[in-house]
Amino acid sequence: MSKNDKEFVKEITAMEVDFPQWYTDVILKTDLVDYSPVKGFMVIKPYGYAIWENIQNYLDKKFKETGHKNCYFPLLIPESLLKKEAEHVEGFAPEVAWVTHGGKEKLAERLCVRPTSETIICSMYAKWLKSYRELPYLYNQWCSVVRWEKSTRPFLRTSEFLWQEGHTLHETEEEAQEETLRILEIYREMAENLLAMPVITGRKSDKEKFAGAHATYTMEALMHDGKALQAGTSHNLGQHFTKAFEITFLDRNGDLQNPYHTSWGVSTRLIGGLIMVHGDNRGLVLPPRVAPIQVVIIPIAQHKEGVLDKAYELKKLLQDVGVRVELDDNENYSPGWKFNEYEMKGVPVRIEIGPRDIQNNQVMAVRRDTLEKQSISMDGLADSILNLLDTIHNDMLERARKHRDENTYYIEDFEDLKKKMTEKLGFAKAMWCGERECEDNLKAETGATIRCIPFKQEDLGDKCHFCGKKAKHMVYVAKAY
Amino acid sequence: MSKNDKEFVKEITAMEVDFPQWYTDVILKTDLVDYSPVKGFMVIKPYGYAIWENIQNYLDKKFKETGHKNCYFPLLIPESLLKKEAEHVEGFAPEVAWVTHGGKEKLAERLCVRPTSETIICSMYAKWLKSYRELPYLYNQWCSVVRWEKSTRPFLRTSEFLWQEGHTLHETEEEAQEETLRILEIYREMAENLLAMPVITGRKSDKEKFAGAHATYTMEALMHDGKALQAGTSHNLGQHFTKAFEITFLDRNGDLQNPYHTSWGVSTRLIGGLIMVHGDNRGLVLPPRVAPIQVVIIPIAQHKEGVLDKAYELKKLLQDVGVRVELDDNENYSPGWKFNEYEMKGVPVRIEIGPRDIQNNQVMAVRRDTLEKQSISMDGLADSILNLLDTIHNDMLERARKHRDENTYYIEDFEDLKKKMTEKLGFAKAMWCGERECEDNLKAETGATIRCIPFKQEDLGDKCHFCGKKAKHMVYVAKAY
Ligand SMILES: [Zn+2]
Ligand SMILES: [Zn+2]
Repeated sequence: MSKNDKEFVKEITAMEVDFPQWYTDVILKTDLVDYSPVKGFMVIKPYGYAIWENIQNYLDKKFKETGHKNCYFPLLIPESLLKKEAEHVEGFAPEVAWVTHGGKEKLAERLCVRPTSETIICSMYAKWLKSYRELPYLYNQWCSVVRWEKSTRPFLRTSEFLWQEGHTLHETEEEAQEETLRILEIYREMAENLLAMPVITGRKSDKEKFAGAHATYTMEALMHDGKALQAGTSHNLGQHFTKAFEITFLDRNGDLQNPYHTSWGVSTRLIGGLIMVHGDNRGLVLPPRVAPIQVVIIPIAQHKEGVLDKAYELKKLLQDVGVRVELDDNENYSPGWKFNEYEMKGVPVRIEIGPRDIQNNQVMAVRRDTLEKQSISMDGLADSILNLLDTIHNDMLERARKHRDENTYYIEDFEDLKKKMTEKLGFAKAMWCGERECEDNLKAETGATIRCIPFKQEDLGDKCHFCGKKAKHMVYVAKAY
Repeated sequence: MSKNDKEFVKEITAMEVDFPQWYTDVILKTDLVDYSPVKGFMVIKPYGYAIWENIQNYLDKKFKETGHKNCYFPLLIPESLLKKEAEHVEGFAPEVAWVTHGGKEKLAERLCVRPTSETIICSMYAKWLKSYRELPYLYNQWCSVVRWEKSTRPFLRTSEFLWQEGHTLHETEEEAQEETLRILEIYREMAENLLAMPVITGRKSDKEKFAGAHATYTMEALMHDGKALQAGTSHNLGQHFTKAFEITFLDRNGDLQNPYHTSWGVSTRLIGGLIMVHGDNRGLVLPPRVAPIQVVIIPIAQHKEGVLDKAYELKKLLQDVGVRVELDDNENYSPGWKFNEYEMKGVPVRIEIGPRDIQNNQVMAVRRDTLEKQSISMDGLADSILNLLDTIHNDMLERARKHRDENTYYIEDFEDLKKKMTEKLGFAKAMWCGERECEDNLKAETGATIRCIPFKQEDLGDKCHFCGKKAKHMVYVAKAY
């Protein structure tokens, strides 16, 4: 081990020893993120931001394909607007940042930094909308929002985070419901096909729904430590906001109506999710389709004639078929050091190429997810690598699904649930009476919450597992981030 | 004219009558933007935002090709950080928005909503940078910034605007200077090749430079009304901030050094620029490469058999070669109404297709910039349209350049300048002594400012045109937005 090598070896706490510390080690040591001078606010470093860009590009395309357009609404919202919808202000007012001065002047009215934009957007929709012919409104914005949090963790819960928020208006209740579910399906598809993160989809209980929503739909993923992560939500807002903000249109009969309304969002929290679903004790394991670097080429004995030339040739070959590839020809570090470094950074495939490989017309390829090594012929290499990346994606999704399923279980009764929520966490399937009081008690007794009422209902008996009353829904219960 | 037609005819004030009103009419009536409930803050509507997305995509690619990476720094900056660089705080403190409360608690230290991010970014760079081997730092972020403005106009000057801000660190002064000019060149190329907006490039006077900069470089464009617009700036910040923030690195000799620093940005102001460079009394005229819709197809007698089929076929044909094309088959509006609507919206090419065109194996194409009508054969139509879009771009750039050149002139003396700055505005070329006092007097007497000391210097004599002292630089003078 050379001096440089020693200098840069980074220790990651084993996740079995201390999961939160493992997470912190991984995100800091792989340069995804850093703490900022403002408590609870994070800096997203280039490697972390590149993951977000890939998520953005993927979703933005899907949104546009389904007729949505991007726009931008102001960062600051007058206090009076925030207060127009009663449940909404109650939900958000305790956690907003207030601007009180502009330049040297005290403002006549306080402005809050947007925690979400329903209110300011509704105030504009009220001004714009005239006729049913203009509907639906299918708008989205990419921005940051601020929610003053007491206890924060990068990506998972921070006082500022990046997200997209869609805000749509529809002529009918049915269309709004269709939109709400259409978006949830886009999110689910993205979670699985981009992030290799399997999710449970369903409806939130009234307690857990968005402040001001008629119904909130969610996708929930299971992390390595057995805790659930709410990874994206889509809200059917009914006419709550459109009535409060007096948004009206002339319908097909010439009558004045309030339109139906949805909003939906995913955030940089997804990055926290994919770290905790796929990571291992060596660091990140990034699913290929979202990885900033999909393949890293590391030349062996790079001073030997022909090695670097061949390595650059490979790089070009892979670039030409659209692979995000990097070649690390830094002479200051040994191949061994580089192996560790890119493993920690979760690069899905490492290609090693040295004089012997060139002689044998092959390269060595190492999968990050399994650490398996295989030689691949130079003939048809680009196709082989593209196939390998797809295989890795599928295997990672399958592995995550297996982990999730192995940690999803039925319970005997409330005592059994309490025990399981202490011992192994995971998703418990249970029947629930639908009562708020029972739900509050569940949380108080177990620390777990109803994550969702899944679309895919199972009949697990006719009694509420928590209180014994008549059961109404089958639910997933878990401790959650 | 049908009832619907009448209902939607929109009047745009002629620019010769009232240029500011023309501008306001155009941006509001073409749905680029709207005023928001917070004074000085604008809503960017989908049609306006789509222009910004095209600018973003173009620049982001260029930035990445030149090795830059995106990241994200917090929205809020502690007052103490803002104060670290003396000139900087003096320049920005009067125009920042202050957050004083988070949730229900008063903050121990005020936080400002970022007016620009040098300070918070430097505080992180100080933490990160160790060795010359990590340099250069080539980072950029896309975000919004807030500057409390007294008098605002959408796109041109608003209390919040969208922009990108690059922040780089370099080992040597030379490299920082190279970076500053490399970026200015990217901006200039973008202005001409994307926005068809010719610009003058050069250095700002000390009075006009960025608060805390060693030197500011700018591109300046001339609007229809003879006023100049600063369309993008690139700052060589020297070691001003890196010293104030104690950013250091071990150089090649093992000595501790402060790195050299640049920052640079363009904003949604560019959209204001392209409106005022290209627009006419019918509304917007959008350069093809940045236009959200490049071609609109309007079927004539669309109820006749085969018309809509052919129109959809054309749409697909153009989409397949990458043209951003829309087909307006709305039956509620007449073709004439649609012609007006898309002219107002500045769509570069309108294609009309009716039964007679189909019979003749052709379409009618109308250029927005010249309003010229031409028939184009269906054979090779895609290529013809691609060529036409390029021709329009080139002609628009040429026309803007001609306007700029016709409104750029030499002056006899200060009296002549005063007169010209009242009568016709435009760019005056003059010699300047380089003194701040002389520059202040120029502004006080004429309302005009030194826009830049152009890279392309001309020798116009050895005396300052404004005060008669010994001349130091040739400058461009104009009234400016
Ligand atoms: Zn119950
Ligand atoms: Zn002078």
